[in-house]
Amino acid sequence: MLITLTTDFGVGSSYVAQMKGVILSLAPQVSLVDITHAIPPQDVHAGALALADVAPWFPPETIHIGVVDPGVGTARRLIAARVRDQWFLAPDNGLLTGVTRAAPASEIFAIENRALFLPNVSHTFHGRDILAPVAARLCLGLRGEQLGPRLEQLVELPWPTPNIDAHAIAGQIIAVDSFGNLISNITQRDVQSWSQGGAIKVDCRELELPGISQTYGEHLPGEIVALFGSGGRLEIAVVNGNAAQRFNIHKGEPIGLRRST
Amino acid sequence: MLITLTTDFGVGSSYVAQMKGVILSLAPQVSLVDITHAIPPQDVHAGALALADVAPWFPPETIHIGVVDPGVGTARRLIAARVRDQWFLAPDNGLLTGVTRAAPASEIFAIENRALFLPNVSHTFHGRDILAPVAARLCLGLRGEQLGPRLEQLVELPWPTPNIDAHAIAGQIIAVDSFGNLISNITQRDVQSWSQGGAIKVDCRELELPGISQTYGEHLPGEIVALFGSGGRLEIAVVNGNAAQRFNIHKGEPIGLRRST
Amino acid sequence: MLITLTTDFGVGSSYVAQMKGVILSLAPQVSLVDITHAIPPQDVHAGALALADVAPWFPPETIHIGVVDPGVGTARRLIAARVRDQWFLAPDNGLLTGVTRAAPASEIFAIENRALFLPNVSHTFHGRDILAPVAARLCLGLRGEQLGPRLEQLVELPWPTPNIDAHAIAGQIIAVDSFGNLISNITQRDVQSWSQGGAIKVDCRELELPGISQTYGEHLPGEIVALFGSGGRLEIAVVNGNAAQRFNIHKGEPIGLRRST
Repeated sequence: MLITLTTDFGVGSSYVAQMKGVILSLAPQVSLVDITHAIPPQDVHAGALALADVAPWFPPETIHIGVVDPGVGTARRLIAARVRDQWFLAPDNGLLTGVTRAAPASEIFAIENRALFLPNVSHTFHGRDILAPVAARLCLGLRGEQLGPRLEQLVELPWPTPNIDAHAIAGQIIAVDSFGNLISNITQRDVQSWSQGGAIKVDCRELELPGISQTYGEHLPGEIVALFGSGGRLEIAVVNGNAAQRFNIHKGEPIGLRRST
Repeated sequence: MLITLTTDFGVGSSYVAQMKGVILSLAPQVSLVDITHAIPPQDVHAGALALADVAPWFPPETIHIGVVDPGVGTARRLIAARVRDQWFLAPDNGLLTGVTRAAPASEIFAIENRALFLPNVSHTFHGRDILAPVAARLCLGLRGEQLGPRLEQLVELPWPTPNIDAHAIAGQIIAVDSFGNLISNITQRDVQSWSQGGAIKVDCRELELPGISQTYGEHLPGEIVALFGSGGRLEIAVVNGNAAQRFNIHKGEPIGLRRST
Repeated sequence: MLITLTTDFGVGSSYVAQMKGVILSLAPQVSLVDITHAIPPQDVHAGALALADVAPWFPPETIHIGVVDPGVGTARRLIAARVRDQWFLAPDNGLLTGVTRAAPASEIFAIENRALFLPNVSHTFHGRDILAPVAARLCLGLRGEQLGPRLEQLVELPWPTPNIDAHAIAGQIIAVDSFGNLISNITQRDVQSWSQGGAIKVDCRELELPGISQTYGEHLPGEIVALFGSGGRLEIAVVNGNAAQRFNIHKGEPIGLRRST
């Protein structure tokens, strides 16, 4: 019985512990794992990326709670989606877009059964008052049908995909990790089917890189490399350095591949 | 068997892990939950607030360890207080003030039985050398009487309460959360009994808000709202924004309510 | 079954959770403890210090995973070392230097048995793809001999030790904690055998301190003190203040002791 937590509450926020207290009050045997609480406030897209990157590494029947919820207290729904034998509980605001683009939800339920909530539901913290007790009860054997009505679909965010034509791939930087690596939305699969093994160049702002490396280890500290990171996405990195700081490149910057002539 | 940890050691400090190692060496089955380690150094009042906000969400028999301990190594006592079927272990410096104001301690013991401590007690880290092993042993069945002499009272911090008269409530901002929400010491209960349902205005520095909202959802992003937060306290927030940064308002700032005429 | 994690991934990085997911997929009963993820990127020495300070507080059979791995993807080995009845899994880049200087490794194995790894090993994240599944399998009963060939020695970092002569001890600041305390490489044992109980002075840049205090409690807030910290190392601290900020002293600064005449 494993529950994970992904929020924008901030590292060190005691709001997270309030959710854990509620879960452990109902289901004391549950193991809790923090995915991250460093999602920038209200950045649903960043939360969606984190969930998509991390969830596949967890075992079947894991229950993932996501709380990036700028619409808390409005009419937005809370949902439970079943994807690849795991549960995802979240506001229906696109936070599961990355997860469901990788594998479609087999079942979706609106979370509406008030008997499952805490007795007093605040207007500003549905993570604690609704999602935490519902997750605990799913661990204890609750079935999806008991949550509320079945839904046909969930809200999806626009999801930036690279533009691929015969000559080039045009993508963008979608995340910067704690090492300053610039992570793009161009995947290894995108590149392999397009390049057919031919030589390519990588462009990002003023940087022009002569190809994609296998690993940092081929390069000296301080060198700039493009390589596929551990999530299968094309990244630009400075070996033992911080590419984001050195080039002042942020999320949203274009990154391109073209054939080397 | 659940032990929580609240400290000013800093997020990412390895001092926390030293305490966890000591606890798990004695009581391997214990579940550990971090409440927060982001209490500002030596800020006993902030620690007292965090403990008071979070503890009620945890199950009976939870053992909460609080370490915000500017007097470590002096004659200040260490205590174990029993409040609402939970244990609280802390230096006797006011760190439990928020907890015991909400519900009085049914029992208080001085922690003095050296047989329960680690063999070598440092002068600077009683959280690891005294509170951690004592908490582990309480999990294993130790009784309060075995800790040391029973006490009649514990040290309490001055606790800022709002000033309420016929015309106005005068409170203050006591915390700023990771979203930049300005959290006051004025509770929903204070306001309900005072306002009798009449119209009110909220003032905080140059801000004048025409009432208390139910939820962020009634407002557009960027709007300023006053509402009762998830802890039952009056808060000022910017919808999907950061009120503390936008208005440069910090802990300690006055906030007032007056009747709307 | 206890596994700890020490990395330079950054507090709040979701890379940590990917490792936890892999471990819990193989060994669901394991307890996981974060030592720290705030090691500065690629700072192997800081990681080595954290592991050495924290590991002794954990029980026998704990498995410590360390990932500060600037050479990931190069020919550097991954190793498992047995020290004081605990396992340490790490790149063979000196990350275990602090641990093995305190107590020698009784056994060292290269981690080379690919059958123990995840099926697809990335070039940039061996913590997740190799160390996490190997740690989980050690919890499940795997023996060291099954990891790979036995090694005679591991890579050790140069380790700054104080220079001690009849008149003085010359050391350096090796860490700054979250309170701003300046932690040196001069130990209580070094000082006791050298001073023979005589009066001493402590110098660090322009600071000249008239002796070593027992505890903060002997001093007023704001006073500067030298004392032995909870790890047994000589530290310079400002009582209820931040010495690193106040004197702008960083890691690497010399600190000295001389006899008081």
